[in-house]
Amino acid sequence: MTSRSLNKEFGAELFFKCENFQRAGSFKIRGASHAVECLSDEQRKKGVVAHSSGNFAQAVSLAATSIGIDACIAMPSSAPKVKMDATAAYGGEIVVTEPTAEAREEMADQIVAQRGSAFLHPSNDVNVILGQGTAAMELFEEQQTLDHLVVPVGGGGLIGGSSLATHFFGQGCTTIGAEPLAVDDAYRSLQSGKIEFNETADTICDGLKTFLGDNNFPIIQKHVDQIIRVDESSIIDAMKLIWQRMKIIVEPSSAVPVAAIRCNPDLFEGKQVGIIISGGNVDLENLPF
Amino acid sequence: MTSRSLNKEFGAELFFKCENFQRAGSFKIRGASHAVECLSDEQRKKGVVAHSSGNFAQAVSLAATSIGIDACIAMPSSAPKVKMDATAAYGGEIVVTEPTAEAREEMADQIVAQRGSAFLHPSNDVNVILGQGTAAMELFEEQQTLDHLVVPVGGGGLIGGSSLATHFFGQGCTTIGAEPLAVDDAYRSLQSGKIEFNETADTICDGLKTFLGDNNFPIIQKHVDQIIRVDESSIIDAMKLIWQRMKIIVEPSSAVPVAAIRCNPDLFEGKQVGIIISGGNVDLENLPF
Repeated sequence: MTSRSLNKEFGAELFFKCENFQRAGSFKIRGASHAVECLSDEQRKKGVVAHSSGNFAQAVSLAATSIGIDACIAMPSSAPKVKMDATAAYGGEIVVTEPTAEAREEMADQIVAQRGSAFLHPSNDVNVILGQGTAAMELFEEQQTLDHLVVPVGGGGLIGGSSLATHFFGQGCTTIGAEPLAVDDAYRSLQSGKIEFNETADTICDGLKTFLGDNNFPIIQKHVDQIIRVDESSIIDAMKLIWQRMKIIVEPSSAVPVAAIRCNPDLFEGKQVGIIISGGNVDLENLPF
Repeated sequence: MTSRSLNKEFGAELFFKCENFQRAGSFKIRGASHAVECLSDEQRKKGVVAHSSGNFAQAVSLAATSIGIDACIAMPSSAPKVKMDATAAYGGEIVVTEPTAEAREEMADQIVAQRGSAFLHPSNDVNVILGQGTAAMELFEEQQTLDHLVVPVGGGGLIGGSSLATHFFGQGCTTIGAEPLAVDDAYRSLQSGKIEFNETADTICDGLKTFLGDNNFPIIQKHVDQIIRVDESSIIDAMKLIWQRMKIIVEPSSAVPVAAIRCNPDLFEGKQVGIIISGGNVDLENLPF
């Protein structure tokens, strides 16, 4: 999608790849589909396991069950109800855990041990990373002359795959990450040269609270030009701007690249800028504005 | 647009013509553009005048100023701020009046008398009606085999034009109006054979509070098959359903056709149904859910 009014306001040409219109409401289905398609016949019989607080849960549920593979997803009790309902509706089995990363990882490990299921990591599985990169690849098919591609940074799967797509299909395009200041682990990881974590996760971007992995970090180090950090109020303002002007529903995480562009006019003015809108799964009862 | 999940839920194939993505956020620009293009050179010099509480104001402002014609719009003080701001941003002059239909009509008459400007009626001007019909015409270009076309009914311009499009471009398709029960003047007009009015206007559909006109009523009588009425809670539920499943922002008025389909499964099951999404200009600070 493009927006005449946003182009005018930003003084740039913006090209939005709208994964909010993707099946299951986010880009995650790309990685999940590619990963389950890559399973051997033997692995398919034993099903897949994942842990996720939201979008990846829905994606694995849909990707697996739609080709006849059992899916079991460990979800924290704090996951938005709308995402839990959708995950169940796609046919996956949900196991609810305590609302910590450790609890859901343990539960996933346990199911792998019991059933012999294949574990799919939401952002560090190589086949997942490659699948996520297809959104950017498709954007380059439509708009080859992008100067910058701006992508939200969470667990590193989307930006890892996107930066590979930029490398292989872009023409002198740079990949720029956009990250909430409150969970700037990826920014700090690029600075320090090792995977950093967040002590707190005080952001409305529930999809971006995770940290990088050992498979995606080297890709990001090699192919991501820089990571721009933005504060929460800029994210909320950008989200509202997208809703109002483009008439599309996007998650807070998807507003982070727009906030990054808005806060750095010198970098983007006069440029052709691709933006990955990561998803549109929002709890309408609980909006930040 | 289409929605796999809504098709499944409704047991019908739905085809949405998304005028929320239209310039100025609603179908109204179609009628306004066509009407200003039809003005003589002499008329163009004296500008245009309209009265509107919202979408038509923005549309006239944009349509006129973009071809160098002055636009003056009488808007009631009760009009949503977001619509007033947008009207001003497109370059039109706004005159704020008391929040009654009479007050803004009087103001428009006064400006016509003073300046000799051409008056554009939002729904009863023949060139406006023809312009509004182009949304349905385009939908038939893409999907010729529609069984029903469901259109929100307000002042009668959109459904008048749409029903002409169905007549000339459809293949055995019927045009069905969808109207809030709280302002069912068009339903009653079809029953009584004369233009009826509403004593109260207690609906969230601010675009549908108006009544039919002497130009569009005969078209509606001849070409609209029936009008389905829906209550407010059905409209709010349908609006939320569209936002959640389709990830698009639509006005309450645009949810009325979806509510009508949802409340009448026998009529629509197994059918190909076209729906005109009239617009997406919503005050995000003031949602009904």
